[in-house]
Amino acid sequence: MIYLDWAATALPQEDIITEALKKSFEYFANPSAKHFMGKEARKILEEARSEIAGLLNTVPEHIVFTSGGTEGDYIPMLSLLSHPSTCSIAVSNIEHSAVREQADIMKARGYKILQIPADKNGFISADAVLKTIDSDTVFVSVMAVNNETGAIQPIAEIGKALEEYSKGKRKIHFHTDAVQAIGKIPFDLSKTAVHSASFSGHKIGAPRGIGFLYLKKNIESFIRGGGQENGIRPGTENLAGILALSGCLKKYYENLDIYVSHAKKLMDFLIDELSGIAGLSFIPEARPQLKDKFSPWILQFAVKELTGEVLVRCLSEKGICISTGSACSSRKQIRPVLEAMKIDAKVQQNSVRVSIGPSTQKKELEVFVKTLKEILIEFR
Amino acid sequence: MIYLDWAATALPQEDIITEALKKSFEYFANPSAKHFMGKEARKILEEARSEIAGLLNTVPEHIVFTSGGTEGDYIPMLSLLSHPSTCSIAVSNIEHSAVREQADIMKARGYKILQIPADKNGFISADAVLKTIDSDTVFVSVMAVNNETGAIQPIAEIGKALEEYSKGKRKIHFHTDAVQAIGKIPFDLSKTAVHSASFSGHKIGAPRGIGFLYLKKNIESFIRGGGQENGIRPGTENLAGILALSGCLKKYYENLDIYVSHAKKLMDFLIDELSGIAGLSFIPEARPQLKDKFSPWILQFAVKELTGEVLVRCLSEKGICISTGSACSSRKQIRPVLEAMKIDAKVQQNSVRVSIGPSTQKKELEVFVKTLKEILIEFR
Repeated sequence: MIYLDWAATALPQEDIITEALKKSFEYFANPSAKHFMGKEARKILEEARSEIAGLLNTVPEHIVFTSGGTEGDYIPMLSLLSHPSTCSIAVSNIEHSAVREQADIMKARGYKILQIPADKNGFISADAVLKTIDSDTVFVSVMAVNNETGAIQPIAEIGKALEEYSKGKRKIHFHTDAVQAIGKIPFDLSKTAVHSASFSGHKIGAPRGIGFLYLKKNIESFIRGGGQENGIRPGTENLAGILALSGCLKKYYENLDIYVSHAKKLMDFLIDELSGIAGLSFIPEARPQLKDKFSPWILQFAVKELTGEVLVRCLSEKGICISTGSACSSRKQIRPVLEAMKIDAKVQQNSVRVSIGPSTQKKELEVFVKTLKEILIEFR
Repeated sequence: MIYLDWAATALPQEDIITEALKKSFEYFANPSAKHFMGKEARKILEEARSEIAGLLNTVPEHIVFTSGGTEGDYIPMLSLLSHPSTCSIAVSNIEHSAVREQADIMKARGYKILQIPADKNGFISADAVLKTIDSDTVFVSVMAVNNETGAIQPIAEIGKALEEYSKGKRKIHFHTDAVQAIGKIPFDLSKTAVHSASFSGHKIGAPRGIGFLYLKKNIESFIRGGGQENGIRPGTENLAGILALSGCLKKYYENLDIYVSHAKKLMDFLIDELSGIAGLSFIPEARPQLKDKFSPWILQFAVKELTGEVLVRCLSEKGICISTGSACSSRKQIRPVLEAMKIDAKVQQNSVRVSIGPSTQKKELEVFVKTLKEILIEFR
């Protein structure tokens, strides 16, 4: 078995998760309870929050635990509903469905959705953001690293441009989906002018069902309940998940340089190997030349011979796991990110994504490339 | 340590949770992925869904996994936002904050909120529901078992009355928060005319961060993303949580008769013992006479001598964990449920909740009563 679908979900950090679970058994009480057991659980929870805040170079007050990336994406956008006025929301046209489809349904409540166009390489420039927003724009969402192409977006520049733009005017909330960025590439949230950023634990080996929202600006959450997480995210806190998330994030942060250097070496190797395959095109085409502008964990390409779906199936039959794109879009036959990049329809259909992780080995990639070549020969 | 705060969170079923986690490590892939590992994870997930549906006497299509009770409460209500018209929402005045406060913020979007009044014993009658709703009411929410008093609401009767009422008219969505009911009392969802019911795993020993929404009626979810859970609840599925939830629910259902009989015996004992304490009043006063109308797992009472907050602290110092009410409301100094029952302000302030579980022992209750008496003597 060769697993090359880390962007969909990472291999679990079994030791960290198991230890976190044991600790949660010990501190099993509801952290909102006022008895000593509740207070002890609260203490452990707040320690994990402080740990994460420290890693992110921010304060614990800015960390809101969520059930994952999707929730971290919709809480800030839905908070607009707490105010009676409707206005416009600008989202990039390469967003994850958690942002794109959430924005789309906001139209039902009278919000106008503005699309920020990506260039042909899949990048959103600060200029494109400024050109798209309108005088009634209150919310801008641009992801930090695209989950299909790996394109690293200029979040700091966009944040700065929006700050400049809104001087003396109403502040625009700037949100970023940082699911493929945090723990994966050097990304200092505290130095960017984002007001919120969503993150999902299972992308770095923590369990599914836990994530956090970095929230620098006060918002009035439209999701209500028991007032947990400073009134932003109601629901009894998932202590086991929080402890595991904190442990995994610490591991990724402590090893970030090593991991990134490992990923870069592997990715260079993979790109070199794939470059030699006739009829294979990288998405975007300039991917090999623009290496430094892409996450070293994600690569998208298309072969001439067969559709992404068939290629995924053929590789799967040989024990190799890759994907056609976002697992979250696997249900839908559309490829909005590639469409945004104006990729040829045929190439869109044939595109696949390979994503690696800290424990991916060079020999796994060798087997992958060898198997891919064998499949292509069969189909020629 | 004596833990009598099971309604806030149950003791974790460590064996079931640990086994579920191990299985999730084996099937770690994203269940939406199209490779063999994704498909295997999907199979395991759907098996758990079928298991739960079987226990609930319903079909798998009616089970939507969520991150917990709060989410299961807000998804149906928020789905109203997917349609442009605004209308009225009727909620009982004894709802959990997940329903009460969510309804409250819906006002910001033009919805009218109608309050269905409870009687002095904390029950919502079908008659009260019919008297409250209006011609533009599209959504009714009445919880199945109140989390503070344990009052079992006549959900089947309310459902039937609403069905009769809406014959030939627009159907009213009937939602119930079943967090304190499912697995705790005989409660056959398939025989009630509810359209949705929320449930939280950690109330029956599953981990925090997992729950399900029983959804009999198609709704257009306002929470959008990767289309998981039939488009109702986006986000990568929490397989470990789902497996643990399925295992715990199975255990509770298989042992329901034994558990309920155990709880009834303990509760009878506790009520008898407490009845002998001068100045102690049950909430509602008729609680001992109305035993069968209350969950045998929850008891609320007040003593004359000291506030609930002080009593919780005094007991906590002696290693006994009880609560003043809902852990989810512990942040707020208001007691809407008791207010709804028109309980005297002083009694409200002094009220505490004792909640038990399947592993609660009679001797623990003996120690609790003894300690309570000692504390009361100190304060007299």
